[in-house]
Amino acid sequence: MAIPNAGTAGAWIPVDGNYESRVRASFERQAAMRYIGARLVGLAPGACTLELDCRAELTQQHGYIHAGIVGTIVDSAGGYAGFTLFPADSEVLTVEFKLNLLSPASGERLTAVGEVVKAGRTLVITRGEVFAQTGGQRVLCAIMQQTLMVMHPRREQ
Amino acid sequence: MAIPNAGTAGAWIPVDGNYESRVRASFERQAAMRYIGARLVGLAPGACTLELDCRAELTQQHGYIHAGIVGTIVDSAGGYAGFTLFPADSEVLTVEFKLNLLSPASGERLTAVGEVVKAGRTLVITRGEVFAQTGGQRVLCAIMQQTLMVMHPRREQ
Amino acid sequence: MAIPNAGTAGAWIPVDGNYESRVRASFERQAAMRYIGARLVGLAPGACTLELDCRAELTQQHGYIHAGIVGTIVDSAGGYAGFTLFPADSEVLTVEFKLNLLSPASGERLTAVGEVVKAGRTLVITRGEVFAQTGGQRVLCAIMQQTLMVMHPRREQ
Amino acid sequence: MAIPNAGTAGAWIPVDGNYESRVRASFERQAAMRYIGARLVGLAPGACTLELDCRAELTQQHGYIHAGIVGTIVDSAGGYAGFTLFPADSEVLTVEFKLNLLSPASGERLTAVGEVVKAGRTLVITRGEVFAQTGGQRVLCAIMQQTLMVMHPRREQ
Repeated sequence: MAIPNAGTAGAWIPVDGNYESRVRASFERQAAMRYIGARLVGLAPGACTLELDCRAELTQQHGYIHAGIVGTIVDSAGGYAGFTLFPADSEVLTVEFKLNLLSPASGERLTAVGEVVKAGRTLVITRGEVFAQTGGQRVLCAIMQQTLMVMHPRREQ
Repeated sequence: MAIPNAGTAGAWIPVDGNYESRVRASFERQAAMRYIGARLVGLAPGACTLELDCRAELTQQHGYIHAGIVGTIVDSAGGYAGFTLFPADSEVLTVEFKLNLLSPASGERLTAVGEVVKAGRTLVITRGEVFAQTGGQRVLCAIMQQTLMVMHPRREQ
Repeated sequence: MAIPNAGTAGAWIPVDGNYESRVRASFERQAAMRYIGARLVGLAPGACTLELDCRAELTQQHGYIHAGIVGTIVDSAGGYAGFTLFPADSEVLTVEFKLNLLSPASGERLTAVGEVVKAGRTLVITRGEVFAQTGGQRVLCAIMQQTLMVMHPRREQ
Repeated sequence: MAIPNAGTAGAWIPVDGNYESRVRASFERQAAMRYIGARLVGLAPGACTLELDCRAELTQQHGYIHAGIVGTIVDSAGGYAGFTLFPADSEVLTVEFKLNLLSPASGERLTAVGEVVKAGRTLVITRGEVFAQTGGQRVLCAIMQQTLMVMHPRREQ
């Protein structure tokens, strides 16, 4: 059975041709990303990839990366995946996200991938995945489903 | 209309009379809590409260606390709410959580409250709320629904 | 520990004084409610209660009411809880909901309660609970968290 | 950017070689599926597809299929996707699911696809998608993320 929406990836056309510098500038302003050590390593229309080294400061009681930190990077990956498709003068807000933890988030580093599933005028829906990488191996350790809101200028929520 | 399950809070009886020191010891081992600056400020059977000062390092691009950090403290609050009811030799894992962001997470500090809704042998379900506090005012800024797993000794997931 | 937002129930003031007849007319147009046998039994600003008799046609393989049917009534309860607070000429759409099943949905009937947690201009967030009732006893069998969208006239999504 | 876990579909090996008749027998016992008119049209290890004709009895107030009915078929699709991988004498329970509605669920029929993402001993995580089909066209109208529990014989939850 084929993955049903395979083939839509890569089909997004950004309304703002300058999306990449706009997303990177916003990412730079996320102090939380810098504080935990997350890096923006991939960007395409409707898609964003972040990486995070597995540092001891970010662990929970069993030595794995805390579920909330896993959520933090995949929330940002989904948010910036959506933001690539937003108009030039808009802002992005996370309305909600839901995260399933599948396997221990441990190893050398985590890779969080966000992808747009539906891009509406007001709401954008994304899916995310987080992989734990050690050497050449990677294990899917979390999946996410997320709702974003497009904040157009001069319009209250 | 009354809140339907009001009255069940306080009804939980922990199977481990020593739950408080067990929970506090586990919290101390969560390096991520220390790194972001979260404090365990309240504990009761089936309930846990954490506090987090709103530090600039934890913000997103608009200066609010990052949604993922909000998720991190309420995931821990829910997890430890559940862990108060677990057997002495067990461990707690977050299976999944879902977070709605309601208002900007800003102000002086955030308070995250987790409460057990259902305590089964293998799975425990919690709800969480996060408040943004400034002076005497507090605003509900996020709500969570969470599934925890009781890891009994010598049983694989 | 008190339930943190106790006291906010009953605090909602509808912008449309005629909300009750508007909600009841919309409920009457939900053919699915009639087909499964759900009844609107309670309505107040920001709150809605539905009832459903436990009929054999609605069961899953163990004889309990199907999780999706549980979701159907609590989605409608949350949706109409929100709709009580909407402007007169608007429509309501479910953006997403998340449902935890806690106990078997069985007995004589189910009661689904929806309550508004946050009412914004565009998005409204609700929580829901479903109880299984037999004689005078009721058991909490599901909890929900939901995002609704206000569809103002002549505005695309 | 490739869909990250493409390639894992089709990789599941069922422990019960007789999974197909076991799943079909369970589906036949779901009275709710028969009542709403859902059909099991595809089954493979870790995957299940259901179809539902868009009947007027299943609509909400705008004439689309009710979000809860969309949830009902994709919950069952995910549940049976997981159940293909369960041991012969086990049962399946939905712990929770989260559904995003993307587009109106209307047209001639809905197709719900469930796929296993992680299969543990106690918990199985799935993703689901629902498509609205009219003639040769299909539109993705909902996505789901779900947690299932394996009920081994003689083990309480």
